[in-house]
Amino acid sequence: MAKYIFSNILGTFLFDENFKVIEKIPYKGDEDRDYTKELPAETKLKNKYKDALKPDYAKETKVLQKILDHFSQNPKLFYQPNLSLTARKLTSSVSDDNIIIHTISSIEELDKAINMLSKRLREWFDLYLPEFNRSTPDHEAFVQLILRKNRKEMMKDLNINSTLGKDFDKIDMKPMMDLAGQIDSLFKLRKKQELYLEIMMKRHCPNLNELAGTLIGAKLFAIAGSLRKLALFPASTVQLLGAENALFRHMRTGAKPPKYGVIISHPIVRQAKEKGKAARALADKLSLAVKIDLYKGQFIADKYKKDLEEKFR
Amino acid sequence: MAKYIFSNILGTFLFDENFKVIEKIPYKGDEDRDYTKELPAETKLKNKYKDALKPDYAKETKVLQKILDHFSQNPKLFYQPNLSLTARKLTSSVSDDNIIIHTISSIEELDKAINMLSKRLREWFDLYLPEFNRSTPDHEAFVQLILRKNRKEMMKDLNINSTLGKDFDKIDMKPMMDLAGQIDSLFKLRKKQELYLEIMMKRHCPNLNELAGTLIGAKLFAIAGSLRKLALFPASTVQLLGAENALFRHMRTGAKPPKYGVIISHPIVRQAKEKGKAARALADKLSLAVKIDLYKGQFIADKYKKDLEEKFR
Repeated sequence: MAKYIFSNILGTFLFDENFKVIEKIPYKGDEDRDYTKELPAETKLKNKYKDALKPDYAKETKVLQKILDHFSQNPKLFYQPNLSLTARKLTSSVSDDNIIIHTISSIEELDKAINMLSKRLREWFDLYLPEFNRSTPDHEAFVQLILRKNRKEMMKDLNINSTLGKDFDKIDMKPMMDLAGQIDSLFKLRKKQELYLEIMMKRHCPNLNELAGTLIGAKLFAIAGSLRKLALFPASTVQLLGAENALFRHMRTGAKPPKYGVIISHPIVRQAKEKGKAARALADKLSLAVKIDLYKGQFIADKYKKDLEEKFR
Repeated sequence: MAKYIFSNILGTFLFDENFKVIEKIPYKGDEDRDYTKELPAETKLKNKYKDALKPDYAKETKVLQKILDHFSQNPKLFYQPNLSLTARKLTSSVSDDNIIIHTISSIEELDKAINMLSKRLREWFDLYLPEFNRSTPDHEAFVQLILRKNRKEMMKDLNINSTLGKDFDKIDMKPMMDLAGQIDSLFKLRKKQELYLEIMMKRHCPNLNELAGTLIGAKLFAIAGSLRKLALFPASTVQLLGAENALFRHMRTGAKPPKYGVIISHPIVRQAKEKGKAARALADKLSLAVKIDLYKGQFIADKYKKDLEEKFR
């Protein structure tokens, strides 16, 4: 007499030809339901009944009916395991991809905040020592110098004896210096997050990280939405990621098409004479690198990088 | 014989009828050139030559020619005092107005940064404990709770036993918690700057500060550009400051005209049934209060405020 083994969310069941349950192993927790592996309950029954088969489609529907009958007394038996299984899948769907995207987005937003507050600080500080502003165009250096030096020292560095700025009381200095301190700590956080991003990228997509650099790589990643999606894009799309506005303008108005997106800030493209050509070659290799990373291939991007650098120097 | 006293940037001069210099007192520093007061050098000459006159316009041009002749040998004599006088005027033009405007602008920009980074933190934290996000809509409370409690405590507060979030390694927690710490310190700075702004406003425009409140008062101030400009606006303009977009839309397209600008967030307007009416009454009194502050009048805004509160409760 034929026997059938059938597993579902509730357990593993052994049926006879008439679909009567001979034996059942109900599942206790989500671990028993890990469908990605061979289910231990099935293995157990298979070992016990060597001649047991998997039911074919026609039989399966009848089996399902049995199961339903079997448990119809208590629908919670379905509800609870189903909910918990869904939750488990949701949880495990949070991947390195999500964390990388949040980190690069956070870095981009920190940049925005830093720029906005630095501009404010510069204008404010202009009331106090206007000669200093243009001498130090870099925001980070500007903040550092303000925090470390007093006005006399700064005037000495600028080679001036008098300033068009106003003398500030201590109480008026404080909110300005507090703002400078805040910007300084934003810069520090940005650096920490960039280091963390680099660790994540090296672990998750070493080839992309090596060839594109951490920030550009992560930006491509974030625009695509995940490593898998990025790997599915053709190289010509990778080349233009980040230039969507220019691309749509081109399609709408016939303006010049863009030649590069975020990869314009890559050293190989930036330093190349023929930037469009360099961007295309880089995008080609990037597209390859991402595919290698997706399928956990070996590390080869250092070779790609060297080739490109030699070609476009 | 008539004598003329004439002062310019270089000094005070006594001329005879033929515009020959009888006596001169050259200025040494900018203090001697303080035109807002009676010049000490002129006083000195007037005391010495009781019959000396100020030259009229026709004579003045001849006098100027003399001076030019007198100093034409060395143009630096003009250049240097002129530059230093301009610098002095620039310096003294930095007023409390500028500092107040920078402080309120800085607060508004801190708000923008806080909002942007808080949204990022919420999305990021959703990977870890998604059930928490909607339970705490206030950004500051959200950040505080994240920093003070661990996941178990938060789940207990939410009355849940399991979460759809993913377990984070320590290394993955850190950048998220760092971001929370940064937002916390942005909140702290914002509070400090608001306190400082209140001190400034109380000193500089106590009536406006009392009636409008520190933040709204400073916003009106910043839109106008200075206390003087704000005082020159009619009440109907004060009522609409901050609603420029809606006003221009009204003028362009005939859409409904706005009834209030930044004063919409004032408690008297917000809580009033007839908001437009309350806004007009408040703007009337604000306009008065600003004028009183500009001319350093007495403190009366508490009375205005009480009247309005009684009228619109």
